[in-house]
Amino acid sequence: MPFDKPQQSEVEAYFDRLFPLLRSITGDGVRKTHDILSELMPLERIEIPTGTRVFDWTIPKEWKCRDAYVIDPQGRRILDVNQNNLHLVNYSMPFRGRLSRKELDEHLYSRPDLPQAIPYVTSYYEPRWGFCLADEQRRALPDGEYEVVIDTDLVDGSLTISEAVLPGRTGLEVLISTYTCHPSMANNELSGPLVSAFLCRSLSVKEDRKLTYRFVLVPESIGSIAYLHLRGRHLVDRTVAGVVLTCIGDRSHLTYKKSRRGDALIDRAASACLRHFDADTEFLDFYPYGSDEKHYCSPGFNLPIGTLMRTPPAKYPGYHTSLDNKDFISFAAIANAVEALQRLMTLLEENETYINLYPFGEPQLGSRGLVSTLSRTENRSAFTVAVKWVLNLADGSHDLLQIADRSNLDPSLIFHAAARCREAGLIAPATSDRTQVARLP
Amino acid sequence: MPFDKPQQSEVEAYFDRLFPLLRSITGDGVRKTHDILSELMPLERIEIPTGTRVFDWTIPKEWKCRDAYVIDPQGRRILDVNQNNLHLVNYSMPFRGRLSRKELDEHLYSRPDLPQAIPYVTSYYEPRWGFCLADEQRRALPDGEYEVVIDTDLVDGSLTISEAVLPGRTGLEVLISTYTCHPSMANNELSGPLVSAFLCRSLSVKEDRKLTYRFVLVPESIGSIAYLHLRGRHLVDRTVAGVVLTCIGDRSHLTYKKSRRGDALIDRAASACLRHFDADTEFLDFYPYGSDEKHYCSPGFNLPIGTLMRTPPAKYPGYHTSLDNKDFISFAAIANAVEALQRLMTLLEENETYINLYPFGEPQLGSRGLVSTLSRTENRSAFTVAVKWVLNLADGSHDLLQIADRSNLDPSLIFHAAARCREAGLIAPATSDRTQVARLP
Amino acid sequence: MPFDKPQQSEVEAYFDRLFPLLRSITGDGVRKTHDILSELMPLERIEIPTGTRVFDWTIPKEWKCRDAYVIDPQGRRILDVNQNNLHLVNYSMPFRGRLSRKELDEHLYSRPDLPQAIPYVTSYYEPRWGFCLADEQRRALPDGEYEVVIDTDLVDGSLTISEAVLPGRTGLEVLISTYTCHPSMANNELSGPLVSAFLCRSLSVKEDRKLTYRFVLVPESIGSIAYLHLRGRHLVDRTVAGVVLTCIGDRSHLTYKKSRRGDALIDRAASACLRHFDADTEFLDFYPYGSDEKHYCSPGFNLPIGTLMRTPPAKYPGYHTSLDNKDFISFAAIANAVEALQRLMTLLEENETYINLYPFGEPQLGSRGLVSTLSRTENRSAFTVAVKWVLNLADGSHDLLQIADRSNLDPSLIFHAAARCREAGLIAPATSDRTQVARLP
Repeated sequence: MPFDKPQQSEVEAYFDRLFPLLRSITGDGVRKTHDILSELMPLERIEIPTGTRVFDWTIPKEWKCRDAYVIDPQGRRILDVNQNNLHLVNYSMPFRGRLSRKELDEHLYSRPDLPQAIPYVTSYYEPRWGFCLADEQRRALPDGEYEVVIDTDLVDGSLTISEAVLPGRTGLEVLISTYTCHPSMANNELSGPLVSAFLCRSLSVKEDRKLTYRFVLVPESIGSIAYLHLRGRHLVDRTVAGVVLTCIGDRSHLTYKKSRRGDALIDRAASACLRHFDADTEFLDFYPYGSDEKHYCSPGFNLPIGTLMRTPPAKYPGYHTSLDNKDFISFAAIANAVEALQRLMTLLEENETYINLYPFGEPQLGSRGLVSTLSRTENRSAFTVAVKWVLNLADGSHDLLQIADRSNLDPSLIFHAAARCREAGLIAPATSDRTQVARLP
Repeated sequence: MPFDKPQQSEVEAYFDRLFPLLRSITGDGVRKTHDILSELMPLERIEIPTGTRVFDWTIPKEWKCRDAYVIDPQGRRILDVNQNNLHLVNYSMPFRGRLSRKELDEHLYSRPDLPQAIPYVTSYYEPRWGFCLADEQRRALPDGEYEVVIDTDLVDGSLTISEAVLPGRTGLEVLISTYTCHPSMANNELSGPLVSAFLCRSLSVKEDRKLTYRFVLVPESIGSIAYLHLRGRHLVDRTVAGVVLTCIGDRSHLTYKKSRRGDALIDRAASACLRHFDADTEFLDFYPYGSDEKHYCSPGFNLPIGTLMRTPPAKYPGYHTSLDNKDFISFAAIANAVEALQRLMTLLEENETYINLYPFGEPQLGSRGLVSTLSRTENRSAFTVAVKWVLNLADGSHDLLQIADRSNLDPSLIFHAAARCREAGLIAPATSDRTQVARLP
Repeated sequence: MPFDKPQQSEVEAYFDRLFPLLRSITGDGVRKTHDILSELMPLERIEIPTGTRVFDWTIPKEWKCRDAYVIDPQGRRILDVNQNNLHLVNYSMPFRGRLSRKELDEHLYSRPDLPQAIPYVTSYYEPRWGFCLADEQRRALPDGEYEVVIDTDLVDGSLTISEAVLPGRTGLEVLISTYTCHPSMANNELSGPLVSAFLCRSLSVKEDRKLTYRFVLVPESIGSIAYLHLRGRHLVDRTVAGVVLTCIGDRSHLTYKKSRRGDALIDRAASACLRHFDADTEFLDFYPYGSDEKHYCSPGFNLPIGTLMRTPPAKYPGYHTSLDNKDFISFAAIANAVEALQRLMTLLEENETYINLYPFGEPQLGSRGLVSTLSRTENRSAFTVAVKWVLNLADGSHDLLQIADRSNLDPSLIFHAAARCREAGLIAPATSDRTQVARLP
């Protein structure tokens, strides 16, 4: 299953179109984002009306933002949402008025520890308004009267989710989930959708998929909860593996966070795949915060879904600030993550439990072209070693991932050896009706 | 469940009253010891007559010691039991006579490796008499005739055990066992009874105990065997956790030795509690020697009972000698051990397996006051993290101790978060009849 | 079970008689080898005719080699099989002819990385002929015409296996397998048969064996497959433990490679025994290549058979070359390996699961002479500790090997303590009909 690798320039072009949009958990910024990404993946839109009850939550009003800024005592327009959409507290109520420096200050948010960063602040579920700014700028604001204009609306509308389904031969599904609710930030927003979209494009051209791939773009938290409300039963019945993508574009190594189960197929596949893809990959046990895995892996669902990222959310200094910008990420890192996921999906596609049809002693390998017929010390190739592992553990109780794990060999080598053994008639899928197990006389 | 902490001066006052008594596995020294301790704990006495068969053992005769000393060739009274009760081999037969230096020497015990220490020697089950002395003193004994007076008796009497029971709401019991059979030694005798007594006093004023606490004072080995003979069936049926206290007053860190089971409730609770109480705490796997745990954890009982100590028996140089004296121990260490056990008992009292009543995705925390409604990076408090762990693992198959273990958080934080979640109606005990488990539509 | 230890001089004398023989997977070299070893072990010969189908394989023709050499352009006889039987590619077809230097070269095998070593090359299953030589010699061969004489035959005959069975009280069997198919090499040929033969001699004089010991000498791979074809059902039914011996004569520490099961009796016994026999012993997980363990542990058999060696095959530089000679091995190492196996077999013989007949508390040890009746700190001997471990874990679910493992004591000490406890009537075999388990009143 060879895949196309995305060109970095192509990824960058999409990034540049997506970055300026003012996204939130609802609204037209999200819709425009999905419109652009639908050039890469066959997205279908789901709109969930304001007021819909989704488990313990209610879909909030849709937020519209036409304009927002402040006029300082010198008459200069500052904290303009059109200049940087992080300036406005996300989901700010509409407001117009004149305030003293001191009154205004109660609505300002800055980070003294990062004096040049504009923080990203939201207030989805409590009516508030506010502005975010660099702490340097805040400290320089003169006394005097300020005019505040927040031209927003909270209206009955809907929350937008999009999904792209690539059907496979079997009813078994893989879920790839990421989020599109953050305004102009790079790693903690666009890295996930870009990796997801290019992975989807490459999988969509694969001819014969065993698994069905379900890609979903949601607003973080409320969106995955709404999605689980809509598709929960289906996902519980069908999902054999899945992955949440978050913060996957920075310059650090890959980090795989296990599913709550800890030993699900996706956990075993990720361990086998990523250790060999990049020896620096870090593996974390599940913890119930982070991104949408906390919902997918909540006790009522406990889905077999892990999380792929580089530096985990909140673990890099500029997280949730204007420092999480284009300079912070790498398009090579994004392309590399797509490749890692392509390999991971290949393992999911091709994993199989085999039965050795010649289980009594080692069968002839030389006559089947699986090893040289001339015995010399130098002959023991990695391929031959992989063949021997496959034959030895093809007993109906080890799948190829377990064989890769126990042999500590690159899973691609084990999968290749298994394919050759199968072609040579030495092994057969344990589940096949036609598999004839040899019996000891 | 806040507890009173014992005053060190109060502990010391009890120590000073208890230290001089000549204790043994039977006799009035034991009874006086229990009389004094009964000021702190509601002890009830059990007397088991000489000759009673207790499993493989027989209750020995009761030992009475009126006087014992030696007159040296210069007519000086030496090795006087009234000066230091370690001088007399415990359970010495009565004897009066005149011996040469050489004949006397066959009845002397000293430690060449600790030339200033009087060793502690017993001979409960073989008739012997002897004296213990510093090796320095032994080497200086002149030739000549010695007069030996051992005015003891071995009479039909009884072996004394005392127990204090603090009843709780349920029939489930916690056993706290320690021993009162050693004469004037500090760590390897009085540390255990003092910790036990002050723990008992603080638990006795607690209003609503879930568990019944059974404190027992026995002579080591024969006493716990006799106690098991008396209460074995009851203990097997009721005991959910227990701890033997020994050598718990020295200046080293705490040491917890696991029960024979290794993963009993007490082992899990001690691990969770003591790691966070003092990071230096050492954890040992079970071994079948030491103190009375070897009987409680014998294969016929295999009770869920661990051992709490500081430096284990026989692991400090002055063990079983006159060097194990008041200077060797610390009353702060004793008070600290009481506090550790109070926390441990709190975990046993409050441990619970919960069901998340809102298991589909994470429920709203902000509206329930469990997290700030304003999203900012700095907001993720340890409390919020603990709430998320509790909710995620409240699935009816993890108790709070397991949640503390998996999250690596201080169990007091997890227990507090669980209490808040329960107040908020988010979780309910898995065992409650009224618990309504949510169902996926 | 005290054993005789082989004299190194005696081992060396056998080595010197066996080394020069031209062995292969069939033929008279093998038969002469077995004739000599039958002086030490009661071997019975099994001949399996050419053409016999054994699982996926067919017994090949028998190879006879009368002479083989090359005449160089100067008329000198070189690469003479009588000078070093590694010169001839094993199983070479007959050939006579004159070739140019260049034509000859296509039939030559050397090791540029080991320029002074004659490599060992075989071609059992493809018709070939060839000569092996030091790379130094190869590079010095002048141009000109060479005369090649290979006076061999491949004829219908048989493959030779020998086995020696030492019957025991029970039907349970231990298999010790090694191979006799390599020509003049020391470690990777004669170390295994010599260790096996001297072990067999020492076991054969033991009076009362519980287990039956089955020693087998096979040509590697095809021989063990043929043997499994002949005895497979019997071995599956009877074998409780086994060991393949290979490369066990060099100067490195012992290496034990676990069976495919990983936790079979032999794996536990080897772990307990060899850790204490030599702390440098290395333990390896199973891998499906190496020597005949790959057949015994193939998925159709999965026999509980480990591998004992020193430096594993292919892990020392001179492996499969003329450098694997008498200088490379040590007769002390061979004698030491025999002793290690004697101890290992003793554990297999004497391992037992016991029931403590006095399970309620610790029984009296002093009155049974298992500990001193005078309590002194110095008294806790390793023997007493072992007695306490045995009594504590004699619960019908731990065998002595598990007790040795959990106590981290030398298994010989645990086995000795168990024997003493059994003599004292404290424990009895769990499987005995007469074992009366004590009941709690």
